[in-house]
Amino acid sequence: MAESTLDLTLDGPALTARLVDFPSVSGEEKDLADAIETALRTLPHLTVDRHGNNVVARTNLGRGERVVLAGHIDTVPIADNVPSRLDADGLLWGCGTSDMKSGVAVQLRIAATVPEPNRDLTFVFYDNEEVAAHLNGLGHIADAHPDWLAADFAVLLEGSNGEVEGGCQGTLRVHLRTEGERAHSARSWMGSNAIHGAAPILARLAAYEPRKPVIDGLEFHEGLNAVRIEGGVANNVIPDACTVVVNYRYAPDLGPDEALAHVHEVFADCGVAEITVDDHSGAAMPGLSHPAAKAFMDAVGGTARPKFGWTDVSRFGSLGVPAVNYGPGDPILAHKRNEHVAVERITHCEERLRSWLTN
Amino acid sequence: MAESTLDLTLDGPALTARLVDFPSVSGEEKDLADAIETALRTLPHLTVDRHGNNVVARTNLGRGERVVLAGHIDTVPIADNVPSRLDADGLLWGCGTSDMKSGVAVQLRIAATVPEPNRDLTFVFYDNEEVAAHLNGLGHIADAHPDWLAADFAVLLEGSNGEVEGGCQGTLRVHLRTEGERAHSARSWMGSNAIHGAAPILARLAAYEPRKPVIDGLEFHEGLNAVRIEGGVANNVIPDACTVVVNYRYAPDLGPDEALAHVHEVFADCGVAEITVDDHSGAAMPGLSHPAAKAFMDAVGGTARPKFGWTDVSRFGSLGVPAVNYGPGDPILAHKRNEHVAVERITHCEERLRSWLTN
Repeated sequence: MAESTLDLTLDGPALTARLVDFPSVSGEEKDLADAIETALRTLPHLTVDRHGNNVVARTNLGRGERVVLAGHIDTVPIADNVPSRLDADGLLWGCGTSDMKSGVAVQLRIAATVPEPNRDLTFVFYDNEEVAAHLNGLGHIADAHPDWLAADFAVLLEGSNGEVEGGCQGTLRVHLRTEGERAHSARSWMGSNAIHGAAPILARLAAYEPRKPVIDGLEFHEGLNAVRIEGGVANNVIPDACTVVVNYRYAPDLGPDEALAHVHEVFADCGVAEITVDDHSGAAMPGLSHPAAKAFMDAVGGTARPKFGWTDVSRFGSLGVPAVNYGPGDPILAHKRNEHVAVERITHCEERLRSWLTN
Repeated sequence: MAESTLDLTLDGPALTARLVDFPSVSGEEKDLADAIETALRTLPHLTVDRHGNNVVARTNLGRGERVVLAGHIDTVPIADNVPSRLDADGLLWGCGTSDMKSGVAVQLRIAATVPEPNRDLTFVFYDNEEVAAHLNGLGHIADAHPDWLAADFAVLLEGSNGEVEGGCQGTLRVHLRTEGERAHSARSWMGSNAIHGAAPILARLAAYEPRKPVIDGLEFHEGLNAVRIEGGVANNVIPDACTVVVNYRYAPDLGPDEALAHVHEVFADCGVAEITVDDHSGAAMPGLSHPAAKAFMDAVGGTARPKFGWTDVSRFGSLGVPAVNYGPGDPILAHKRNEHVAVERITHCEERLRSWLTN
């Protein structure tokens, strides 16, 4: 049936439209993964592997370097914005146009049209990026087949407005708990106030000077912030517990253990009864000093910016693969009903990557 | 019908048992108020007034002083502990024995047996003390007929284990709100953290030295405490608001306006965006330096203690009438299924009051 196949001879914008018209909301990626696998298996220069609904294809040319081009194939739920629609101004509208089927189209176009790249290539198409982290297909591949992701450098084709965003900062969330002793508030001296006990924690946070380390030429900017605070039993009771939830966003020159050690050090003398890790995702180095990355920057042009937020490039970071975000989509339009992408940018992105991989 | 009347010739313990067997859960006091009014109207030395289910009876002997004996006639819901039961150890069990039908029995006994007291007497029997403050019958009398409560001194016969508890501390609850500006926690420098903004508030609270003023010979003990704190929008958002709920328990040498002014002063330079009063109930002077109170202390004996918690004596305080708690019940047993009172203490309390009012 025609609708279940992908024609990789279509140009980037047309292939993007085809992908948008092929619904693949998180959890329902099987048909699209099948189509991608089938299309890639027709290309004799690639070997193709599959793990769940994740598809990985590779050249095996014995080049001195290997780079990954990665993208997720799922979208957020459709919001009356499928099928796609191309308007007279060259904007392609629809669910996933920016996030990130335009990037996936570029991956597929490079896979189909660059049979002899100057660097060995690994194409990664993964599922469940838009939902809970433990479902993320890239994470599943990293757990089950880390060798599939081995490379010198990775480009995640997430929408970045056609500009390079290097690496990403880590994010650590901890609960700092203070303890006290309950008493009636009319006889407060019989108890010990755990909210008052949080005073040194807040003072330390308010006075904290975040680092701005320059890594691979990019100036990162850390942050240590309370994102929640909660304490209290009743309006007439001295509270025996208070919890401050702190989010540490850290630059990629720190590993996860170092980041946690730093938080323990910052609050060492603040009377914290317990520090519990609630969530932790490591940082990723931009890796822009690597030769493959330098050539990439020369080819795509522009000035790389640091990525402050956490993205899937961190998963490459945890495997020791420097990674950047570079894709045709506009991140501001992600998840919106009026999501769209400029077709000119899809073509431009594809051309820049081809230039990097063939010159 | 016999069950609807009260026999004021019964002794204190027997009258307490009779009152306990006459259910009067909050909101259902009408029958008991009727019985009290009827019984008091048979006493020629008293004039009797009624407002709702509140009954006020007075002597009019033209004495130089007037004192109030007050008690609430409602109870918490019955918990399989009615009718009352007198055991072999002289303990009377049942709902309201301690809180506070034993006190009401003493009021009625004094009303019936002291026709010519050395001080003019006002007996106040009121409803709805065990429920929301706006329903409280003593408050309704104070609003509608403040002249009925005019006096030099008041004794609230709430259970105090037969010891005098003088005055009561006020309680003021305020919300201190700090403001900030939201931002993604990965770019925290784009916002302003309202939880960090609460640091000076908590530091001020932690360092606060509460006063312990001696008033009428009683050492009060203030307290200024956070009882709740709440802030946060989401785990990845710099919060734009944080609220600290502070409870100020203040000694009766401060009026309500002074107490509020003190709180404003304490937090004046802490960066608070707004201070809102959530609840406020004034303090009451013990009034133990008044001649009527001195004679009272001489008659009942023991050493008066300050009352730290807020009680209905505060309503007398707001009318300019010094007041104490003094009653036969045990406050620890109030509202409990195993509520009881020692009959010996009922008799003792009645004798001590009679001694004060006749010698």
